[in-house]
Amino acid sequence: MSSAKPVLYSYFRSSCSWRVRIALLLKGLEFETRPINLLKGENRSDEYLAICPMGQVPTLVIDGHTMTQSVAIIEYLEEAYKERGTRLLPDLPVERAVVRELTEMISSGIQPLQNPSVCARVGADRKTEWGHYYIDRGFQALEKRLLETSGKYCFKNSISIADVCLVPQVYNAGRFNVDMTKYPTISRINQALLEQQAFIDARPDKQADCPDELRMQ
Amino acid sequence: MSSAKPVLYSYFRSSCSWRVRIALLLKGLEFETRPINLLKGENRSDEYLAICPMGQVPTLVIDGHTMTQSVAIIEYLEEAYKERGTRLLPDLPVERAVVRELTEMISSGIQPLQNPSVCARVGADRKTEWGHYYIDRGFQALEKRLLETSGKYCFKNSISIADVCLVPQVYNAGRFNVDMTKYPTISRINQALLEQQAFIDARPDKQADCPDELRMQ
Repeated sequence: MSSAKPVLYSYFRSSCSWRVRIALLLKGLEFETRPINLLKGENRSDEYLAICPMGQVPTLVIDGHTMTQSVAIIEYLEEAYKERGTRLLPDLPVERAVVRELTEMISSGIQPLQNPSVCARVGADRKTEWGHYYIDRGFQALEKRLLETSGKYCFKNSISIADVCLVPQVYNAGRFNVDMTKYPTISRINQALLEQQAFIDARPDKQADCPDELRMQ
Repeated sequence: MSSAKPVLYSYFRSSCSWRVRIALLLKGLEFETRPINLLKGENRSDEYLAICPMGQVPTLVIDGHTMTQSVAIIEYLEEAYKERGTRLLPDLPVERAVVRELTEMISSGIQPLQNPSVCARVGADRKTEWGHYYIDRGFQALEKRLLETSGKYCFKNSISIADVCLVPQVYNAGRFNVDMTKYPTISRINQALLEQQAFIDARPDKQADCPDELRMQ
């Protein structure tokens, strides 16, 4: 392990950046955030493309390696720092499969379909309905599955990768005016998570690059 | 481990079912396939919903557990049957992170955006252009990354989860008329994989539920 502090290239409102912030905080890893303003196209600057040729956030530079793709990064944090901070996966393979299933329902089944660039491509007239539809459809499935798997959190009573992905997705649901009263289990777990310090500190409105007018009360 | 043969609920052309078929074959696990015809809505039958309440394929019943979400299932197969057949992840956490990054570029970054139900929702007039766009965009990024990571396969010279996801995605690229001459590295790896017996046997045209007119020569 390198002794240099990990560097996270991040945008305050990117849900994939947010996932990695939560995971780093849950692991108790001190890190430096370098904001990349997606609205200003800073992810397409020569300087950033030299670090991340895909021009995406998040990028995490850790232990001498440059990593992208949020779930892959979080799996790395769990493997390389297993005994540090919060364990993000249970021990048993069948239980790990359940946590990864819940994670994938969000990370492949919902998030990619409602991200801003996809919604923009659908067209200005349809983008809100489009995002709303995919979050709603995904949450219907997730709510049903969480009734079987959840305790205080998505999987039983331990915080896991699934929870790390859940909170940013519920925030996005709010942006698309999804009626969360239809999803009492998701809402209950989200509330419990938002009381945890790592989840508080990772919120978009706690980030240096969040514009003042978007900070929560 | 239960001694019952695993049962895979699958549709011959579903790329996520295909991924799981490849992984089961690479692990040398004998399994029974039960075809679920998505075009006929068999995934919405009471009988199937009792097994998989989400009405999705693939579902794998293995070791007494019912699992969904293809990457989660493949991670399970690797963990529960690590020493059996082909290893699907390297040992080092930083190398595992690369394999998972490549996997996620396909499983979250491309596949969800070009699946038939999403393309249908975009509209009949735009669906081919839509699917083509997302595969092309994803392959541009993947081709660039594979130049750094690949050997004979996506990650060095060992078959991994990334390869399991690559082959069905290249097949879909063909359905959307993506010009694969732009992606020599992806094409080369795909060719090498298609010579492997597990990848041959997992092909859609080798499945019992493939209509005769769609079988390859």
